[in-house]
Amino acid sequence: MTAPRAKGFAFRVLASSESGHARAAVFSTPHAEVETPTFMPVGTQGSVKGLTAEDVASTGAQIMLGNTYHLWLRPGTDVISGLGGLRGFTRWPHAMLTDSGGFQAFSLGGHLPRPAPASGPAPSRAPAPRKSLVTLDEEGFTFRSHLDGARHHLSPEVAVRVQGKIGADIQMQLDVCPPGDSPRDVVEAAVSRTSRWARRALATERPEGQALFGIVQGACFSDLRRAHAAELAALEPSFDGLALGGFSVGEPIPKMYATLHEVAHALDPERPRYLMGVGTPRDLLEAIDAGVDMFDCVLPTRNARNGQALTRFGRVIIKQARYKDDARPVDPDCTCPCCAGGYARAYLRHLYLAGEMTVLRLLTLHNLHWYGELVRGARAAIRDGSWPAYKARTLADLDEENKVAC
Amino acid sequence: MTAPRAKGFAFRVLASSESGHARAAVFSTPHAEVETPTFMPVGTQGSVKGLTAEDVASTGAQIMLGNTYHLWLRPGTDVISGLGGLRGFTRWPHAMLTDSGGFQAFSLGGHLPRPAPASGPAPSRAPAPRKSLVTLDEEGFTFRSHLDGARHHLSPEVAVRVQGKIGADIQMQLDVCPPGDSPRDVVEAAVSRTSRWARRALATERPEGQALFGIVQGACFSDLRRAHAAELAALEPSFDGLALGGFSVGEPIPKMYATLHEVAHALDPERPRYLMGVGTPRDLLEAIDAGVDMFDCVLPTRNARNGQALTRFGRVIIKQARYKDDARPVDPDCTCPCCAGGYARAYLRHLYLAGEMTVLRLLTLHNLHWYGELVRGARAAIRDGSWPAYKARTLADLDEENKVAC
Repeated sequence: MTAPRAKGFAFRVLASSESGHARAAVFSTPHAEVETPTFMPVGTQGSVKGLTAEDVASTGAQIMLGNTYHLWLRPGTDVISGLGGLRGFTRWPHAMLTDSGGFQAFSLGGHLPRPAPASGPAPSRAPAPRKSLVTLDEEGFTFRSHLDGARHHLSPEVAVRVQGKIGADIQMQLDVCPPGDSPRDVVEAAVSRTSRWARRALATERPEGQALFGIVQGACFSDLRRAHAAELAALEPSFDGLALGGFSVGEPIPKMYATLHEVAHALDPERPRYLMGVGTPRDLLEAIDAGVDMFDCVLPTRNARNGQALTRFGRVIIKQARYKDDARPVDPDCTCPCCAGGYARAYLRHLYLAGEMTVLRLLTLHNLHWYGELVRGARAAIRDGSWPAYKARTLADLDEENKVAC
Repeated sequence: MTAPRAKGFAFRVLASSESGHARAAVFSTPHAEVETPTFMPVGTQGSVKGLTAEDVASTGAQIMLGNTYHLWLRPGTDVISGLGGLRGFTRWPHAMLTDSGGFQAFSLGGHLPRPAPASGPAPSRAPAPRKSLVTLDEEGFTFRSHLDGARHHLSPEVAVRVQGKIGADIQMQLDVCPPGDSPRDVVEAAVSRTSRWARRALATERPEGQALFGIVQGACFSDLRRAHAAELAALEPSFDGLALGGFSVGEPIPKMYATLHEVAHALDPERPRYLMGVGTPRDLLEAIDAGVDMFDCVLPTRNARNGQALTRFGRVIIKQARYKDDARPVDPDCTCPCCAGGYARAYLRHLYLAGEMTVLRLLTLHNLHWYGELVRGARAAIRDGSWPAYKARTLADLDEENKVAC
């Protein structure tokens, strides 16, 4: 047991795989325990789209992610803190993590909302391209709300204070995430600034019992990543966990895997390791093998809303005509409410084509349940010594992923 | 106990109010028992919008309505019958009723789908008004699918055969429903044709164990209604229940109530009485008092999707700024999953403004739960002799409906 950093926060490794760097662990927050490897469903606006908190818990998820950018702008920190913080607001009784808001401030906050089109005939020329209005300097980000165009400033200190009011169990520091194809000097500059911002975040007061994670940058330059991981691990007061940011931002997947295998196990083994915004089931297996403990990604929930059910044996694209009168559930062996409830592919297809929202909830439940099964299986396999076989078998199944599902 | 008509179908009055004509009864189908007065949630396309079958059952509903017009056109009767009929298709384990499809054929089937706009500059003149393509004659309706423009013919015989394949517990005959402000001669013609169609429907073979209800027309001419009710009740082979169609189609509400009080109790007391497409909580109370047993209406589900929660003490319009930081559930005394789950008005408002679909499911659950409570309360009150007090007390609460909810 590592000495706790934030009050009420502890992390303990239960088992490690003899081959590779996979590990099963548990961390506790003042409100909840989380077994790792774990997958965090994304509740951008305080709701995993289509699901209630009870639904999310039914998939086996023990921790959920909220997006600070969205929650800060709407409904605002006063409303959320007045309802007892994000857990009270959303009625999610387990652990909650918030990101810093930097990623969305950069991607969504760079543009004013489009003005409503003027009445009268359409202009004959194309509209002028929208001008980016986000600025990034040593102080932080200045951006415009994508909702109403209002100017906001996001600094390392503001990120801690906003997340403090939102009140998740785990905060993330504000970082600088360069595009995946950035040259080395740009990545080095991002790493340096992220380190300076790490110090500023750690120096900012936050509510007792809230953990704070640092973010390792460095793109696919493994030496930069390892040096940055060591630098962040050495800071005092210390981070409660370390994250790998800046993956899955345009770099080739094999390069991401290679870098993960060189880097993840070099992050301080006495703290949880979180790979941000990644990924596919294959990504999770590779990263767990590389030593990662925590994941989040919109893939299972977004794909569900696009009518894609993820299964052991490939993707079921529910609108396809082949399912027109298919009486089988998405996956006959699955125990999720959609499959165990006996909803036939033919019924789900009908609902999807008819625009009935219930199918989006059912497929979201199915996909998150499948991610839950994947990490539950990984935890069990690591603890009973069968991780290499579990990984190999699951990857072999996933090799069929591009085949049409049966 | 009345002698069963359709095999496996029975109806039994358990108690009647000493004042007025309210009665508590139970009817059984081969698959389910339904206590009356009852409210049927509307699952137009085989799904109560936003809910699974399990969700619908959790509101206390014992019977659900499907729309034949929609299900016939998509996914089609072969798909549904191949999955074991509408109950197998939707996984709704309780009783199911289908309408005849005539109402939607007339309202939706009268127009071709709009063609996709041609590229190029918008025409300077207004588009030509769409021409109605529905025809109605003694044989039945000819209409165009609102989905693809294909021609379909709906006759009394076709309605029975299509509903036979869809396989609900209760079928409705095809009828003619004139607008609420039609003159007497138009209403008389609709009544006569509905009677001739009733005979044709009864003469058409349908699956064993499916009940068939006749529909009484006559607008707000009570003498026409009573004569039509007697005529339909006397037909052999006989209807399993009698419905009141053609209400809530534009006539003044007090006139509807007056007609219901003069007419409903005149429908054969040994068969269930169903008031089609009506209505508000107040409508239900008046109609139960007049002797009606069964109801359906899109109001609780549609209002939920418009952000309106119906409560004992008025409507909660969830987007209103007054709920911005309101920590109370919609109705603190309500036991539905939305209220008992502790979801604050402030959270529901946030989800609604953020376009998160979960709020539509939660408000739909709440509204249907409230309709379920209303008819459960009515059944209990009729059986224990307190119906007049129950009706008076609930109406008094509803008088507050136009006040802003607390």
